[in-house]
Amino acid sequence: MSKRMVVLGGDATGMSAASTALRHAGEGEIEVVVLERGHYTSYSACGIPYWISGHVADGDQLIARSPEQHREAGIDVRMRTEATAIDLENRTVSARGVDTGETYDLAYDELVIATGAMPVVPPLEGSDAQGIFGVQSLEQGEEIVEDLVRGERSDGKNDGDRRRAVVVGAGYIGVEMAEAMVMRGLETTIVDQAPEPFTQVDPDMGAIIREAMEGMGISVLTGTPVDGFDVGEDGRVRAVRAGNSVLPADIVIMGLGVRPNAGLAADAGLTVGASGGIVTDVRMQAVPGVWAGGDCVEVHHRLSGKNVHIPLGTHANKHGRIIGTNIAGGYGAFPGVIGTAISKVCDLEIGRTGLGSVDADAAGYGYVCATVESTTTAGYWPEAEKMTVKVLAEQRTGRLLGAQIVGRTGSGKRIDVFATAIWNGMTVEEMTFMDLSYAPPFSPVWDAVLIAARKAAKEVQGEIPASPV
Amino acid sequence: MSKRMVVLGGDATGMSAASTALRHAGEGEIEVVVLERGHYTSYSACGIPYWISGHVADGDQLIARSPEQHREAGIDVRMRTEATAIDLENRTVSARGVDTGETYDLAYDELVIATGAMPVVPPLEGSDAQGIFGVQSLEQGEEIVEDLVRGERSDGKNDGDRRRAVVVGAGYIGVEMAEAMVMRGLETTIVDQAPEPFTQVDPDMGAIIREAMEGMGISVLTGTPVDGFDVGEDGRVRAVRAGNSVLPADIVIMGLGVRPNAGLAADAGLTVGASGGIVTDVRMQAVPGVWAGGDCVEVHHRLSGKNVHIPLGTHANKHGRIIGTNIAGGYGAFPGVIGTAISKVCDLEIGRTGLGSVDADAAGYGYVCATVESTTTAGYWPEAEKMTVKVLAEQRTGRLLGAQIVGRTGSGKRIDVFATAIWNGMTVEEMTFMDLSYAPPFSPVWDAVLIAARKAAKEVQGEIPASPV
Repeated sequence: MSKRMVVLGGDATGMSAASTALRHAGEGEIEVVVLERGHYTSYSACGIPYWISGHVADGDQLIARSPEQHREAGIDVRMRTEATAIDLENRTVSARGVDTGETYDLAYDELVIATGAMPVVPPLEGSDAQGIFGVQSLEQGEEIVEDLVRGERSDGKNDGDRRRAVVVGAGYIGVEMAEAMVMRGLETTIVDQAPEPFTQVDPDMGAIIREAMEGMGISVLTGTPVDGFDVGEDGRVRAVRAGNSVLPADIVIMGLGVRPNAGLAADAGLTVGASGGIVTDVRMQAVPGVWAGGDCVEVHHRLSGKNVHIPLGTHANKHGRIIGTNIAGGYGAFPGVIGTAISKVCDLEIGRTGLGSVDADAAGYGYVCATVESTTTAGYWPEAEKMTVKVLAEQRTGRLLGAQIVGRTGSGKRIDVFATAIWNGMTVEEMTFMDLSYAPPFSPVWDAVLIAARKAAKEVQGEIPASPV
Repeated sequence: MSKRMVVLGGDATGMSAASTALRHAGEGEIEVVVLERGHYTSYSACGIPYWISGHVADGDQLIARSPEQHREAGIDVRMRTEATAIDLENRTVSARGVDTGETYDLAYDELVIATGAMPVVPPLEGSDAQGIFGVQSLEQGEEIVEDLVRGERSDGKNDGDRRRAVVVGAGYIGVEMAEAMVMRGLETTIVDQAPEPFTQVDPDMGAIIREAMEGMGISVLTGTPVDGFDVGEDGRVRAVRAGNSVLPADIVIMGLGVRPNAGLAADAGLTVGASGGIVTDVRMQAVPGVWAGGDCVEVHHRLSGKNVHIPLGTHANKHGRIIGTNIAGGYGAFPGVIGTAISKVCDLEIGRTGLGSVDADAAGYGYVCATVESTTTAGYWPEAEKMTVKVLAEQRTGRLLGAQIVGRTGSGKRIDVFATAIWNGMTVEEMTFMDLSYAPPFSPVWDAVLIAARKAAKEVQGEIPASPV
């Protein structure tokens, strides 16, 4: 007899779980129903800044699979439908048509909660004004593009109506949206309350990002909380009040991060952790028959040992595959995260993995830091670009705890080498003579990864005479 | 009392050993004498093709440190001086001025043999003709540049005298020199006796390289040994005879690889291995007080368990540092190699690490292969480039044995992730959910590394129902 899998949320985790389960289950074994509140399925939210910037011409390109395509694959996708309650005891979900208001109950054998995240919206005066946008959904992307187009002159420049952008928050979304606004030709200011932008890296690395952004013509206002918004009589934002500044703004992008959309799960009685995310086991199961993944869960951090909320498409896709595999009767387990991420602002690339200083302190580690400057290629190669690499290693053991890269084109993806080293519990000493690839167009003869590891190893060891290098 | 360190060869290993030892030894503890046969010290031989191509404007840029600079650092560098014999018993080296013929003996406390490699030159008819060049030394690079310039017209194109280039051998130097010749505007043919170019990767990957090179206008003639050279009455090469073809050639580049320059060491009674390289212990010591490193030694391959000869600047530099550390009283040990390398032909990047099929067979491994096609970025990113990734994993254990990447700009350096995984003995299954960096400008949501690992893991496992994915 066929079992019914009900999926709440039709993006990365949900549709990946649905597709994987269907693909691997026997013929007719599983019936899959997906409830999606929005207008789109399987889209790349991470791509939205690049649609707004113009890198990607059309929002449709961000859609990997439409509802129709999923239906052709045999998935019962119900768009504009949200779940309003989960009844764990009776194994039912209450569904409601967002446009119709129609409600009905849906029984499940396996439930997948993939409800994603919600933007952090502080209760600021004027925050509901027109011209203030989030960047979480394709719909929001659409709104921003339409708003900017409305403000564009025929010569492609922006007119007075959309001349000045203020981006609130200098994390991933913030810096990517700052790039997008610059590429759109807007005067751009980015505001953050932290001392340096991009707190996903240490302040000394953030200072390099600040300097680079300023070099791109972006005003970077840090150490400055946003207090509220000035709104015109037409209901549109006019300025951002931040600290002692009033920043005139024709458009405001909110990039203060997201928190797990776990209210439904919590209301149903599922455990929600300190991070606000749903707690699951390694197979991404919350309670028997109920699975959760993606931006609404918390995951194990392999270095801090804590559960963390890291909303990223790469984890969401992995969770979906793991959940689908398990529901189809296979075995899939999520091995946790180490906080690897990458971003860019124009030609400045930022990579990070493992623990930064703040995380390492919070986890109680004693550690040393080493920072090196190097180039992406041999120094004499005409396209050599600068990069700064910072490494954190545990005291005494020398275990690699974290790495951060800030550099120009071609530097960021090296973070994956550090990530793989951390994944395997390598010490910086062990990394020193690793056999990494070398040719002049690809790296100096000592790749930056090796130089940074060596410098950290020296820090760990101190100047012990028996081993001077 | 000061001890004397004599170094034979003033390039990567030799000068790195000298500098490291001097830097770490106590004041006045070590006197360093370097004998160098050529005109240059500490230069990037790997950069020579890029000087010839014009990427690098001037050969001087390839010189990291001149003899004068080394002398200022306190190293007694004796240029145009070669060692003709080593007396292990009496701890002396016989030196000879290459230009002067003057000979003398030099006593040593510590000897470093860093004599590098010699080109493989098969005994072919006409191989001593003018216009046939190797690419091992800066002097040879100079000869090629001068020869090409002589053939250049004032409009920057080549005249009839230097119109057609034939490159013999389609390995690293061969493909890099083919690129250089193309960039110089020459009609270029590359000849190799193997069925596909670039035998450092498997033939199926070599076929991709062939196709790409042909797309760049390079004639690729494989399965064809070179039989000899036609020489004009002026003593200059006119054509390359290869198989049934006569390939007209105004200039010929020999890229048949190199073998260790270990004759001096062998004559002195040091052990030379099956690869032709000097045998050392992990500290790069051949016998007490005699050290060897770089292109003249063989090294331990961590996967095959065999000793191999892998002439690469990155190893040579590591050896030099290790030797210098040990001589200064520290501890340095070379952990072996896994055969990581990277190269490019125009915008085609080639990376490899671990064992290819031939190596894996020779080592006796049972293994599965998985090949995937992916992109360097999200598919919708405008600069997305194609890449093919092949992975070899051991049967049953699933241990990653090797990886090969052939793709366009931005693909090759991913080989370092595989290298780090191999270094740590990872299985492809363990790699499947690794936390690698993702953002649309940097990779698809599933990085090619993860997709390839997953496909290989599936091959290893077969279709076991309990774990279908």
